[in-house]
Amino acid sequence: MVYKVKDSYVNSFGPSMKPVIKVKSGSVVTLHTLDCFSNQIKDESTLVTEIDFSKINPATGPIFVENSKRGDALKVRILDIEVADRGVVAVIPGGGVLGSMVKKPVTRICTIKDGYAMLNGVKIKCIPMIGVIGVAGDEDVSCGVPGRHGGNMDTNLIRKGAILYLPVFRDGALFAVGDLHAVMGDGEVCVTGCEVSGKVTLELDVIKNLAPSWPVLEFGENYYLLVSHEDINKAFREGIKLAVKILEHSLGISWEDAYMLASLVVDLEISQVVDPKKTVRIKIPKKYVKIEQLLEAIRMQIL
Amino acid sequence: MVYKVKDSYVNSFGPSMKPVIKVKSGSVVTLHTLDCFSNQIKDESTLVTEIDFSKINPATGPIFVENSKRGDALKVRILDIEVADRGVVAVIPGGGVLGSMVKKPVTRICTIKDGYAMLNGVKIKCIPMIGVIGVAGDEDVSCGVPGRHGGNMDTNLIRKGAILYLPVFRDGALFAVGDLHAVMGDGEVCVTGCEVSGKVTLELDVIKNLAPSWPVLEFGENYYLLVSHEDINKAFREGIKLAVKILEHSLGISWEDAYMLASLVVDLEISQVVDPKKTVRIKIPKKYVKIEQLLEAIRMQIL
Repeated sequence: MVYKVKDSYVNSFGPSMKPVIKVKSGSVVTLHTLDCFSNQIKDESTLVTEIDFSKINPATGPIFVENSKRGDALKVRILDIEVADRGVVAVIPGGGVLGSMVKKPVTRICTIKDGYAMLNGVKIKCIPMIGVIGVAGDEDVSCGVPGRHGGNMDTNLIRKGAILYLPVFRDGALFAVGDLHAVMGDGEVCVTGCEVSGKVTLELDVIKNLAPSWPVLEFGENYYLLVSHEDINKAFREGIKLAVKILEHSLGISWEDAYMLASLVVDLEISQVVDPKKTVRIKIPKKYVKIEQLLEAIRMQIL
Repeated sequence: MVYKVKDSYVNSFGPSMKPVIKVKSGSVVTLHTLDCFSNQIKDESTLVTEIDFSKINPATGPIFVENSKRGDALKVRILDIEVADRGVVAVIPGGGVLGSMVKKPVTRICTIKDGYAMLNGVKIKCIPMIGVIGVAGDEDVSCGVPGRHGGNMDTNLIRKGAILYLPVFRDGALFAVGDLHAVMGDGEVCVTGCEVSGKVTLELDVIKNLAPSWPVLEFGENYYLLVSHEDINKAFREGIKLAVKILEHSLGISWEDAYMLASLVVDLEISQVVDPKKTVRIKIPKKYVKIEQLLEAIRMQIL
């Protein structure tokens, strides 16, 4: 059976989350999600500056996953993402990399059809992705902020076919998802992607005692460490430190050799640079490491 | 005919460069290059801390390209890169993203055979690339530093099949190339790639009056703006500003629509984060812009 979750939203991840459904490890769940504006924008005359900001970035859930405890990993396999037939893109003064150059807010509605979005006459291929995805951490954190618990990582590789490994902090994990984008570039430079409502189908599994210290994504031939920090240089540093530890552990080589190997085969990538914390991806080819070794190497010490 | 340049090296790009050869626009040139250590490291007992640092990052050239003047673009088509059968990788205290964690210098010699490098038992597929490539700017700049003139951009997409567009500052452009890597990840996190000597074959063409304000790379289905700055956030900001200008100009859309489109289709990428200035790539799909429009949109105003 496929569980369904609808009409239950949270605006933060943390101890205040109350589960709306309990599922066993191995369950498949379909979650219906609102867009990041809680579907408040109906046409181009509605500006982002006019809507109720307390409703920004709703995530659908939370789901209690039985038998998941602090220190475990939650494995989330993304089976499908369906997006609505219209999306919203917006600029706002102060928003995004060029925020200081934005003179006035503008809203655009994109029609979405046959896998393409139309932005004021420009045709763009859709690659649906999940912006907000995570579990309850030790403190309540707004859904707009990314962190070790996941949250607003705005990583466009969190798409159909990817697997996300999240650390579990609280009994049942308390998993939620929202903020789909029909398409978004690496960086999300203007502060929005093509924001859409839709539904996501996922399989949820518990992996005992292997909570990674940051979310890990598996996609195609690579693993990615998803590290978020206000200072992008610190995010890269933290991520590279972990990547070197992973290569050292997996291949049984010295720290120095692992550091050199990282310089040759690990890639630094950008997920987004516009949220309160920036998110980077540290890409490690699967050929150098198995997922169990990777999770072991960066297991989080939490009691 | 193919011109050959050998045994003539510079350590900086700028007015002090004296051309060793003059070629017409459209010429094909093969340049023999030393590795970034000027081939001083012969075995693993030679540490980077022991060599003559005044010889670091030699570039072969310079080549005077006839009819190229200030304000033109130099189009460099990379026809081939051949690397030697051994490369050097090294860590040094203070070097790279984790420099403060490096306790001792270590040198590794990689043997290179059949397109693979061996780093202390680990096999790595080679993707040869050019680390240092550029023209004379208005002031002498060490070959170790990247900038508008090119230089040490350490961009692993500057490989066979790519085309680089550089702004011309001085009569004849004064083009030079060095610092080949058999392989290097995005970031070059330990501060070296797999450093090799070798030879590069290029075609050099002059495009009149279209000097781009930063180097532009054409590779596969995309263009990339290569922007360098001490502060990576400023490099991204400068690059995105140009990308928005390019989309606005090419598609005849408003600045706001171009900013939104950039958020959906432009990607922020990392070339390197370890040189005196960091280099980022702003990736723009070719489907939205032609190269002439791109160069027009970011033409440098220099007199």
